Amino acid sequence: GPATIDYRSLLQEEDFQRLADLTIHDLQEKLEEYGDDVQIDGFDVDYGSDVLTVKLGALGTYVLNKQTPNRQIWLSSPVSGPSRFDWDKDVQTWVYRRTGAKLYEVLESELKQLCDEPISLSFS
Amino acid sequence: GPATIDYRSLLQEEDFQRLADLTIHDLQEKLEEYGDDVQIDGFDVDYGSDVLTVKLGALGTYVLNKQTPNRQIWLSSPVSGPSRFDWDKDVQTWVYRRTGAKLYEVLESELKQLCDEPISLSFS
Repeated sequence: GPATIDYRSLLQEEDFQRLADLTIHDLQEKLEEYGDDVQIDGFDVDYGSDVLTVKLGALGTYVLNKQTPNRQIWLSSPVSGPSRFDWDKDVQTWVYRRTGAKLYEVLESELKQLCDEPISLSFS
Repeated sequence: GPATIDYRSLLQEEDFQRLADLTIHDLQEKLEEYGDDVQIDGFDVDYGSDVLTVKLGALGTYVLNKQTPNRQIWLSSPVSGPSRFDWDKDVQTWVYRRTGAKLYEVLESELKQLCDEPISLSFS
């Protein structure tokens, strides 16, 4: 089952919503731009009902969604499978606690590998 | 990472697409009806880009999506976390190989628990 929620470190719901929406819309924009750069048949980015779907045709589909009770962003990746990211207040980014992986870095690394074209997602 | 694909038992892509679409649209219809029966603030069923999203307000969000390269339906559940269902030709249903759980039964059991109202999803 899902990891136990640590309520002491839980974001307030409105902070979570704001951060998660910001992240998802930021990713949507950057991934749409990326789609114009790569030659992937069936590349499609779609957002609806708080779910961001990135289709890479025959390479598979990414799904990113908010899981508000847990204050997490959940990722389904055709490369690494499912993972769940918490907001890390110290590093101000989404981190998968079990592995320490950062959401943006996971996507950067996998998309480069899948689409053979680098993508820069982190804020700089 | 994701389970290794066993190509010998893999559905043809068109069979997979047909079965997965049928399943997802069937679930969409039944869940929309279910939403009319239960009193859950923020209950919402949405389908787009091959992704079915079922929001249960503060109780969390279910996401169901096709993962075509693996011929799987992936489920993100606020109760049981992520799982990946293969079509089982013998029992003619979607089964999570690791646990033997059937997609429809997982949803029936969790939704009843979450919403305090039974739902019948299996074909009969």
